[in-house]
Amino acid sequence: MLAEIITIGDEILIGQIVDTNSAFISKELNKIGVQVYQITSIQDDKFQILQTFSEASKRASLVLVTGGLGPTKDDITKQCLCDFFQDFLIKDIETENNIKEIFKKYITSEPTQLNLNQALVPSKATVLKNENGTAPGMWFEKEGVVFISMPGVPYEMKRLLKQEVLPKVKQHFKRPFIYHKTLLTYGLGESMIAERIEDFENNLPSPIKLAYLPSLGRVRLRLSSKGNDEKVVLDQVNEYMSVLENLLKDIAIGFEDENNIVTVIGRILKDKQWTLGLAESCTGGAIATAITENEGVSSFFKGGIIPYATQLKSDILGVDSQLIDHYNVVSIPVAEAMAVQATKTFKSDCAIATTGIAGPAKGDGIDEVGTVCIAIATPKGVFSEKFLFGKVRERVIQKTLNKAFEMLLKEISKN
Amino acid sequence: MLAEIITIGDEILIGQIVDTNSAFISKELNKIGVQVYQITSIQDDKFQILQTFSEASKRASLVLVTGGLGPTKDDITKQCLCDFFQDFLIKDIETENNIKEIFKKYITSEPTQLNLNQALVPSKATVLKNENGTAPGMWFEKEGVVFISMPGVPYEMKRLLKQEVLPKVKQHFKRPFIYHKTLLTYGLGESMIAERIEDFENNLPSPIKLAYLPSLGRVRLRLSSKGNDEKVVLDQVNEYMSVLENLLKDIAIGFEDENNIVTVIGRILKDKQWTLGLAESCTGGAIATAITENEGVSSFFKGGIIPYATQLKSDILGVDSQLIDHYNVVSIPVAEAMAVQATKTFKSDCAIATTGIAGPAKGDGIDEVGTVCIAIATPKGVFSEKFLFGKVRERVIQKTLNKAFEMLLKEISKN
Repeated sequence: MLAEIITIGDEILIGQIVDTNSAFISKELNKIGVQVYQITSIQDDKFQILQTFSEASKRASLVLVTGGLGPTKDDITKQCLCDFFQDFLIKDIETENNIKEIFKKYITSEPTQLNLNQALVPSKATVLKNENGTAPGMWFEKEGVVFISMPGVPYEMKRLLKQEVLPKVKQHFKRPFIYHKTLLTYGLGESMIAERIEDFENNLPSPIKLAYLPSLGRVRLRLSSKGNDEKVVLDQVNEYMSVLENLLKDIAIGFEDENNIVTVIGRILKDKQWTLGLAESCTGGAIATAITENEGVSSFFKGGIIPYATQLKSDILGVDSQLIDHYNVVSIPVAEAMAVQATKTFKSDCAIATTGIAGPAKGDGIDEVGTVCIAIATPKGVFSEKFLFGKVRERVIQKTLNKAFEMLLKEISKN
Repeated sequence: MLAEIITIGDEILIGQIVDTNSAFISKELNKIGVQVYQITSIQDDKFQILQTFSEASKRASLVLVTGGLGPTKDDITKQCLCDFFQDFLIKDIETENNIKEIFKKYITSEPTQLNLNQALVPSKATVLKNENGTAPGMWFEKEGVVFISMPGVPYEMKRLLKQEVLPKVKQHFKRPFIYHKTLLTYGLGESMIAERIEDFENNLPSPIKLAYLPSLGRVRLRLSSKGNDEKVVLDQVNEYMSVLENLLKDIAIGFEDENNIVTVIGRILKDKQWTLGLAESCTGGAIATAITENEGVSSFFKGGIIPYATQLKSDILGVDSQLIDHYNVVSIPVAEAMAVQATKTFKSDCAIATTGIAGPAKGDGIDEVGTVCIAIATPKGVFSEKFLFGKVRERVIQKTLNKAFEMLLKEISKN
């Protein structure tokens, strides 16, 4: 059973926004055993929309459409759905009530006629309630193909998908079981790994697929399989994954969590009743942001200091300024002092400290752009490393973030 | 002249990564007058790749392909390009040298045979040098259509596109001039704006398109046009934009910069020789991250404190704990005190402070989830507001971030 995703909106084609909806939808569909065959992003253009609907419906039995449902003239998806299904618009009372409620609750003005027009839906559509917005979701069926139209606003789409769409999809389609398991490795390149596991890869049975996902200092290796018998699929992937893990045991650091490394770190810190503080110089808040994007982190995360100006490392964090003068601001002793001072400042058990030159300018350091020192303080001691992370600012920051979490995970995982 | 983008990789279709390449490529193409007609994301599957190549080449005269160029077995784009152009692989000496150089410089081990195989390219390809990686870019021409293949690693693709691809595209194709201008507005919903500018919208001449881009408390209005005469296009868009700006002068806060609001704020702060400090509670580092993502911010950005645990607002930032007890941690007086203390801590002229309940748990506050107080301190005084930003964590954080920058921009723009 194949699905396709169609995202509609000029803003995507001119690069004004990044399409994050498709990745979210794909991930959710995958979890329930629906494979996404293709994602297509097109303009708010009637000819193109109808053409794309028609082509997708030839390849897939489930087509998810996002975008183009706003109240304004540039949004034409609803009209195109009418054309495609040879349908006409009727007023949906429940949607109208929903629009009025939302205006009462959040907007505190009367809905305009344009807003109320959002309650007009194609007569053949099954309306899916959008609790977070005024454009409803819609479900259509035509010659065995299901079309679902959702608004493009991510948080509206996400709730609609999870609460309204997926339960109906599960009911409607018989689906195979799909399973992915991803091994995280650090420290060896894609091609070196490939050479080492060449025999393993050549002898994988056909339903199992191996993918390499390299990114900034780590390679994730994903085994995937699907089939009708959940147990057979799970057992087979797990069996081959343990062989793979064994082949790479010196560089494997664990499996990719459903969520992310912060969730894994949070679980360990909570178990040990340890807390965490941050002193982020070159990462400029990126580590704190990656932590606080997750809910429930206040049980272990105490806070962070971003002493972006060098002087502040002494003034606020209390790092001995002679240490900075003597060793240079980007140095192991300064990183370690920052981590220790962070545990004192935040009265935390652990701390991450980063200091480096993200570039493109050299800043206050004497080292070349891309030089980064990371220190981790835990009740067991202080651990640090110096790196050279290349010349591209965003990449230096992202690599530092990845490496800092990896180092913290390693240190707190020790017995 | 139309272009299409094809991104290849299973990891996109299972939602493991978000395709950010397409937005980047679209934006760059737009700047040089090339319109992107469609973006298609497909799997590492030979049948699908060839099919998609063939369909795209019927619609567009420029097809940009990313991904599937890695050294491992799951990457099959190069083989598909050979099939599509009825070609065979030959060794490219310059690429081989590049691979060896990269290994010498960054990887400090010998390239494996798999790495060296990346120097094998279709004989009909014009090789485009990839300075940041081992997979070269490739340029093909067939029956008037140009195909360009680039690696999917964003920072490799970005350099290749800007340095190698775009100059050649500019030389190869006659292109119209495309111009977009985007007005930023705050405080009025999409449909209210649409009602107010209905006459304007109905009377736009046909080459000019208006788009509404609503996002979390603000609506961006984009006018676009294209034509062969740069001056005519520019004049017409600017003329209609000033009419639009005048219609919306109470809610318009300026035009969207090539970059972003941080660039605008940074320019003003530098002009006034003012510096900025942050005290971020509920945004947890997101404001600092948004600032330090940009290069050259150290001239105005001194640093930030993230007092995530309530106690730290007194301990580190020096907010009077009686104030917190009396007014509650999410309150105007506490936000204002945080902003003032931040200017003292960082010896900065300005500060942003945020305190709120991002949810989903209520935390230490007594208010409902989504309550946020933002305070701005400048040499002119302290300004603050209390908001209710809904129940979705990521949305509360993003809205707070947007609003904080908007408030700061407003205050520092005052004479």
